Formats: sequence, structure tokens, C-alpha cells
Amino acid sequence: MADGKKLRDIAWKDFKALPLTEKGTYFQGTPPHTLIAQQFTRKQLEELCTLATRIKRINKRRAGANFLKGLLSDKRAMLYFAQPSSRTYLSHNAACQILGLDTMDVRDTKTSSEVKGESPEDTIRTFSSYADMIIMRHPKGGFAERVAWMLAHTGREIPVLNAGSGSDQHPTQALLDIYTLERSFEDIGGVDGKHVAFVGDLLRGRTVRSLAWMLTLYKDVTLHFVAPEALQIGQDILDLLDEAGTKYEVTQDFASVMPVADAIYMTRIQDEWDEEGESSTESSDYHIGAEHLDIIKDTCAILHPLPRRKEISTDIDNDPRAVYWRQMRNGMWIRAALILQSFGRDDEVNKYYDDY
Amino acid sequence: MADGKKLRDIAWKDFKALPLTEKGTYFQGTPPHTLIAQQFTRKQLEELCTLATRIKRINKRRAGANFLKGLLSDKRAMLYFAQPSSRTYLSHNAACQILGLDTMDVRDTKTSSEVKGESPEDTIRTFSSYADMIIMRHPKGGFAERVAWMLAHTGREIPVLNAGSGSDQHPTQALLDIYTLERSFEDIGGVDGKHVAFVGDLLRGRTVRSLAWMLTLYKDVTLHFVAPEALQIGQDILDLLDEAGTKYEVTQDFASVMPVADAIYMTRIQDEWDEEGESSTESSDYHIGAEHLDIIKDTCAILHPLPRRKEISTDIDNDPRAVYWRQMRNGMWIRAALILQSFGRDDEVNKYYDDY
Amino acid sequence: MADGKKLRDIAWKDFKALPLTEKGTYFQGTPPHTLIAQQFTRKQLEELCTLATRIKRINKRRAGANFLKGLLSDKRAMLYFAQPSSRTYLSHNAACQILGLDTMDVRDTKTSSEVKGESPEDTIRTFSSYADMIIMRHPKGGFAERVAWMLAHTGREIPVLNAGSGSDQHPTQALLDIYTLERSFEDIGGVDGKHVAFVGDLLRGRTVRSLAWMLTLYKDVTLHFVAPEALQIGQDILDLLDEAGTKYEVTQDFASVMPVADAIYMTRIQDEWDEEGESSTESSDYHIGAEHLDIIKDTCAILHPLPRRKEISTDIDNDPRAVYWRQMRNGMWIRAALILQSFGRDDEVNKYYDDY
Repeated sequence: MADGKKLRDIAWKDFKALPLTEKGTYFQGTPPHTLIAQQFTRKQLEELCTLATRIKRINKRRAGANFLKGLLSDKRAMLYFAQPSSRTYLSHNAACQILGLDTMDVRDTKTSSEVKGESPEDTIRTFSSYADMIIMRHPKGGFAERVAWMLAHTGREIPVLNAGSGSDQHPTQALLDIYTLERSFEDIGGVDGKHVAFVGDLLRGRTVRSLAWMLTLYKDVTLHFVAPEALQIGQDILDLLDEAGTKYEVTQDFASVMPVADAIYMTRIQDEWDEEGESSTESSDYHIGAEHLDIIKDTCAILHPLPRRKEISTDIDNDPRAVYWRQMRNGMWIRAALILQSFGRDDEVNKYYDDY
Repeated sequence: MADGKKLRDIAWKDFKALPLTEKGTYFQGTPPHTLIAQQFTRKQLEELCTLATRIKRINKRRAGANFLKGLLSDKRAMLYFAQPSSRTYLSHNAACQILGLDTMDVRDTKTSSEVKGESPEDTIRTFSSYADMIIMRHPKGGFAERVAWMLAHTGREIPVLNAGSGSDQHPTQALLDIYTLERSFEDIGGVDGKHVAFVGDLLRGRTVRSLAWMLTLYKDVTLHFVAPEALQIGQDILDLLDEAGTKYEVTQDFASVMPVADAIYMTRIQDEWDEEGESSTESSDYHIGAEHLDIIKDTCAILHPLPRRKEISTDIDNDPRAVYWRQMRNGMWIRAALILQSFGRDDEVNKYYDDY
Repeated sequence: MADGKKLRDIAWKDFKALPLTEKGTYFQGTPPHTLIAQQFTRKQLEELCTLATRIKRINKRRAGANFLKGLLSDKRAMLYFAQPSSRTYLSHNAACQILGLDTMDVRDTKTSSEVKGESPEDTIRTFSSYADMIIMRHPKGGFAERVAWMLAHTGREIPVLNAGSGSDQHPTQALLDIYTLERSFEDIGGVDGKHVAFVGDLLRGRTVRSLAWMLTLYKDVTLHFVAPEALQIGQDILDLLDEAGTKYEVTQDFASVMPVADAIYMTRIQDEWDEEGESSTESSDYHIGAEHLDIIKDTCAILHPLPRRKEISTDIDNDPRAVYWRQMRNGMWIRAALILQSFGRDDEVNKYYDDY
């Protein structure tokens, strides 16, 4: 990765004001941080996907799994989850275990010294003292970036991996989505030229926003945003797509999108919305089930970040086009790839794989 | 293990209606599940006990312990404890660590996505995605069986180990009890022909029910159920013993049973009962202490599933016949044996042991 | 370590009444326990510091880190933290991981069987059943000693490490402070002859009390206790210093101490105190910041047990004399040294280091 710009050479105020893609160039230094979707180039995405698949395959055999466990057995990661999240936590934890990376976790922030009047910066610096990497989830937007910047100003800078901060960024979720699309389209020409439909609550889901951005890195992709008016995708994302020259459609008509979509990305419509009086009939328009299996393409991939509620019927779970369970496991593999890359040891996997 | 019947070939409704021993035949497939006491044959019990002892002995030496840690170092287990239990959790956790099996745990179910409206099945399927085995404790009876059945209908079936579900089954507790009896009677002819007394609250303890059933697999065993009338063993268990031809006695008179018992299995009389007005004099009839050491047999084994309250005086803890602390550690060894067997790697221990 | 006196040969009542240094001789047996600051001799402190530095250096290289992880890979530690403490917990956890020592933890005592009416002794004995060492923190003073004594009366005595009990003892904190002083004075003649100032709340901090005692083991050290009158060091400590012949000064005048101090040990003034009406002006007298950097010695070491509040300005964090962040990491290294020593495997590090 490029190593020109250093976080320690820029003031927080100036850094904070940078546009996202510009910020990203600061995260590719030594050590590399994973903080925002916008820091990735297409080349990096492809390298990560290749690495993830190699790790996944090597792990299938016992000798391979034991080889992987030696890759980071000399390191320790701190999982700091100030916001509860079983599945994101477990997925990262499993990724660490695959690589033999020991983990410590802080999940209940009330037991931390914040109660003793310590600043959040001191708390994080303390936790980072015991580890070689910090994987963090925090309710405050931009907090992970702040941590990376702060650590750059100490004598012990370690990689920071953002496992979700505030409502804005959850880059590893976008990475696992890309990885799932890459794998789904492996035999049909890859992601370029495909139609990807996003369905449900597109307003609040940070997942959709990050993934939409990452898809601008691909050629000739068309995005379809299918949602009730009140939950449609934000204008800022549309502006971004315009700027990147990525085609898109904004619609409430899921039926018209189904037959053309190469991937359908379902999302959960939140409780809050339902309570505001939306009729269940209306929300059922943003649903997929056995009755649609004949309408969608034979090669269509159905994704969902999970947990789901009623937007996907369980009776399509065993259809080969339902990839959301595989998508979940993909998260573990792509995170393992990302963590390994943070320590600059991806070459060891590539070498082992070639000799495999 | 037999591999004829497949969980994926039977509807849940039909499966649920099967008698316990019939259900058990479905759990011995690939992968094998540990769900109910009734799935075990005597041969399997003996194999497990032998395996547990070998693991225990190999673990005594540093090289042996390190050998054991390589047995499952390529695997990960999910410890899903929806019902709090320090000791059952720790015992399974230690068993995993002995075998080098990495663990992840979900102990606070409130942090899980159940709060987001996810079905329990989806939650479990998610957690199982990251692991190669699921060890679970759940307040709902039969839930572990449901999970095993559900996983059989996905493309990723993994072993399910029931660490206690509802009021009905806690098979690994019964296994550790059997293992403790086997070890206690090792030099005096084994479990066959022995008198085993159960004392205390026999109505609500699932431990006693499972162990009583397992003892029907032994020859000429006599069971003595010693309890106040209101807490006596259920008629369903007695019917089961009748059917199996196992002798038993139902009594309130502990004094008469003490001198003939080869094993005394004490249990805790619950709070709820005490509050209902039972006099402490009466409950003291179901107690063992220093004053009884001359009355019981020299070879008698005193067991207790722990935690205890006043039913066993601490002043007999150092008597060689008090095996309840050893019983606790036995749980760790038998669980290690069981987990290893779930992955079909018991032969590696046997081979190492022979060369030892 | 000396092995004459055995905990199992003394009654609890008699043991409890012993003076601290006499108690200490019982903890140096087999297995050795770490329970009170007063059990250490200067020779032992020096050995531990040397061992900690060797571990730290060996850990820098990948091969070295992997060597360290094999040292206790056949053992398991129980981290029993009945009192919440993120940083003490994490520091011990990291120390265990460095040595490959598997850990289990009980941090929420409500999930334990204490709720079922079990005695604390039984609970601890249970937890110790699954492990080869117990690292514990407990709100009750002397509880760790009681545990060590209790385990000595079972057939399975394992090392007990006190990670803080009640208001009296937190020996590993004192060890890490000594280690930090040793390292800070490495090139300027060591701890002997130095002036160490303690500043802030000296009444309630067990840290200061333990460290003051340990400093009596060094030659010609002068202690300066700088605190508002109501928070000054206890007379019992001063008596102890008199007895040991250690020079000290008791003062409210931080300004006069600053230029002569070789080490300044800042402590946090607790909330409770502030609420009792102390003016913020007064507490600001026990503060250090950029404005003092010209006044203190060029070689002065500024320590703080952390977490801090306002007693140290963050703008001196990058001054080389601010060693409190290093002090935090020192805790991890000295604890690793201590744990390794508890298993009698320090020689393996020394041998590896010589061949390094």
C-alpha cells in the first residue's frame, strides 16, 4: 500500500475536514488502518477477495488450518465493542482465531475506567497498550478515525479496524458484500456490467451507502434503489453516483426490477418505521419469497446483511440463489484477509497456496 | 457410531413424536450430536470413560498436554449459553481448551439480534456459521434437539452438544456421574451389581432422572430413592425402571439405606421447597456429615452435582469417600472425550496412549 | 524460593494473626502465591525485573514470541474478577496470552452459583478445579489469602495471584511500579539513593502504600509525601518507614519537591473528596503540566497508576520523562514474569535469552 502520507503529520482539525477519498490515502500507510469504505481501490478489493478465497480453501484441510493459525500467533488483538453486536463481534473473533491471533475483548463499557472520569482517548490508548491491533465498534460517528489519528501521535501506532462507527461507516460489511458479489458472479463475468437492486430501508442502512459507493469502482454497473418514498436512498449517495458516472434507478416498483436484477440486496425495514403507521401491505411490497423464484434470474444472487425479519421467507433459504447465509460466512473470510493484510503477512498465504 | 438414520430425512413433527431411545438413533450419525441421555449405549459409555481417562493421564505430562492441544487446533466451538451457568460453562470451556479447540461465547442473549426481531432459528444458524461445533444451554426444553434438526436442513450441519435444555435433559452431567461411578468402582468390580442411593430433591433434578436412566444399562444395579414424599422421584422414571427390569426402592428412611449403599448421590433441596414451610429438622434427614462416616461402607462413593448447601458438611470433604470434587473435574475430562469423539478423532488419543 | 513453611500446617486463625512479612514466608512455597507486597525480597524483585525485560525483548521477534507462547501452553488460568476492572483484567489476560496460557474468566459474579446459596469457598474451589492457576480480584480485604489457605487444605493446591483485594493489597501494581522505576533509573545508578515523590490522594490509594513499603528494600531512598492534609499518607506507613530506617518528608508543598524528585508518582484525587467541597484551586496544587517541565529534573520519571483525570495534562504525554504509558505496558511484562515464575519455568526464558 502507498505510504506517503502520515497521520501524525496532520492536525486533527485539518484531517477531519478532508473529503473521504482523500482521508483514505492516510489509512494506507504503515500500519494500515481499515476505517472507511472510500479508502479502497478496485485493485485492493480484488486482492482482498483473492486472499479471502485462498484462506478459505487452505482452511478446509487440517494441515492448512494449522498453517493459518501460525500466521499471527505472535500477535494480540483488542476487540473493543462499545456498542453491542453479537454477530459482528463473533465474525471478527472467528477471523482472528483462524489466523491464531489472540483476542481480548471489552464489550461492556460500564466496567471500563470511563466511569472514573477518564477521557475516551486515554481509555483507548490503555486498551491499545496490551494489543497489536484494535478492532472497534463505537456508537459515535468518526470515532475510529479519531482513534487512528490519536495513536499516530503516540510512540505505539497499531492498526485500527473499524467494525462500525455511528451511522456512517461499517467498511468490513461493504467488503463482505463485495466479496459475496464477486463470488456469485465468478462464472458469469464478474461484477462489471451487472444490475444490483437495493430493497427496503435505504435511508438508514449504512451498509447500502457503503456498498453503493464501492460499486462505483466497477464498470457499467447499474444500481436500482427500491424503497418506499420515506425510506429512499439519500441524495448525497445519488450525487456521488452521478459524479462517478454510475447508472442508477430510483423506484418503488420492486416487481419491475426483479426480472432484470443480477443481485437483489434486501434490507430490514426497522421497527421505528412500522410503528409510525405504515400498513403491513405496503411493507410486503419489499419482500421476497417462494412466489418470486420463477420471476428472478436463474443466476440472481439474493443478499441480506442479516438479521432479517419478514422481508425474506425462510422457504427460499435452500434455493441456490439465496446467498445470505454464505454471505455471513464470507464476512469471516474477508475479515481474516483484511486482518492478515494489516500485519503485512498476506504473502505467506500466497506462497503456501502456490505450493498447495 | 451407526449412521443409518438422517435428521434431514424426517419432518420435525414426526421427529418430535418419537420415543427418546428412538430419537437417540438419529443423533449417532455424521456429525454425531449429544442431546439426550437415552442416546447412549453401554458400549458407548464405556468407550467414553476409557477415552476420558486416557486424556486425563496424557494431560499430566507437558508433552502430553501439548499433544492434546493439537487435536482440535483447526476447529472452533461456539458456546451459546442462553441460560447463565458458570460451572457448566467453565467445564465445557476447559474441555475445549484441553483439546486446543478455540471457543467463542454468547452468554448474554440480550446482546444478540433476537432483539431485532430475528427468529431463534436464524440466531442459532448465524452463530453456527462461525464455528465447527455448537455447545448450548437453553431454558427451553427440547431446544437443542430442534437446533440439531434445523442444522440438518442446511448445507452446514455441525455437531450440537446439549449442555442443559429446559428441565428435561442435561446429558453431559449424567455422563460425568457415570464416569465418576466407573472410576470409584474401578477396583471393586465396576458398576454392575451396585446399590446407588439418590437423596434429596428427586422431583425436580434433571440430573437424577438422566442418571437413573443410564444406570438401567448396567446389570443388577439397585436404586434407592430417598426423599421426602413431596420431592420423590416421578412415576415416569419408575415405569422406565420397571420396563428395563432395574430394581429400586422408594423410601424416606436415609438411615436404613446408608449402610447398604455403594454410592450415595446427594442433591440440593431447593429454596422454593424450604419456603413452603418444610421444617429444617425434616430436611436435615437428607444430610450427610462426619457423624455418618462410620455407618457408610468403606468403599462408598459420595457424589453431589454441586453447588451444595447444607446437605453435605464441609468436614467430610477430605474423606476419601467424598468424591464430589473429583466428580467436578471428571466433568471436564468426560466432556473433552465427548467433544473429541464428535470430531471423530478419538483414535489419535488411543494411538498416542498405546505408544505412551 | 524457600519452601519451609506450609500453609496447610497452620490454622486460619493463627495464620490471619501473623504480621505481613511473616505471612509472606508462607507464600514462597510450592506452589508459590503472589498475595502481598511484603512477601518480596529485594533479590526477588530484581530477578522478576530481569525476567520481565527478557520476556519483553524476546517477544519483539516473531520466533521469540512464538517461543514464549509455548512456555505455558499446557496450562490454564482462571481469571476470577468479582470486582470489575478492565485494565487490571486486560493486563493479566495479555500476560497470560504472551505465555500461551489459556484463560477462562468469571467477571460477573451474579452468574455464579453464589446465588444458589453456595459458600464463597466452594465457589472458588469449583473455579480452581478447571484451572492450574487462579488470578483473582475481590472487594473483600484478605480474601485472596483465605483462598490460598483454603486450597492448601485440598488435594489440589494451585498458585493464587492477587490482582487486588479490598483496600489493602494490590501487589502486582507495586511490582510494576518498581519495575518502571528500575527501568527509568537503569542508566543512572538504579533505585538506590533516589528521591521519590508521591502526590495526590495518599490516604486511600493502596498503590502508594504497597510501593512505599517495597521502597524500604532499597538503600538510601527518600520518600516525599505531597498531599492536602486530609489525604495524607497514613501513620501506619510512616511507622513502617521509621522501623525500616527509610527517610521521608510529609508536605503540602509540591513546588519545593519538584526540583529534587527523581521520580514523581502522581495519583488520582477521588470524586468523593471533590464533592466534600475541596476547591478546585487547591486540588490544582497537586497537578503537573507543561509549565513544570523546566522545573523538574531532566532525568525525572513521572508515573501514574492510571486512569488519570486532571492531575496530569495530556500535553506532557510525549515528553520522554512521562513514563506512565510505558508503566502500563510494564504491568503486562512484569505480570508475565510473575506468572511464569509461579510455574517455575523462568529458567527456560533465561536459557533462551542466553542463546539469543
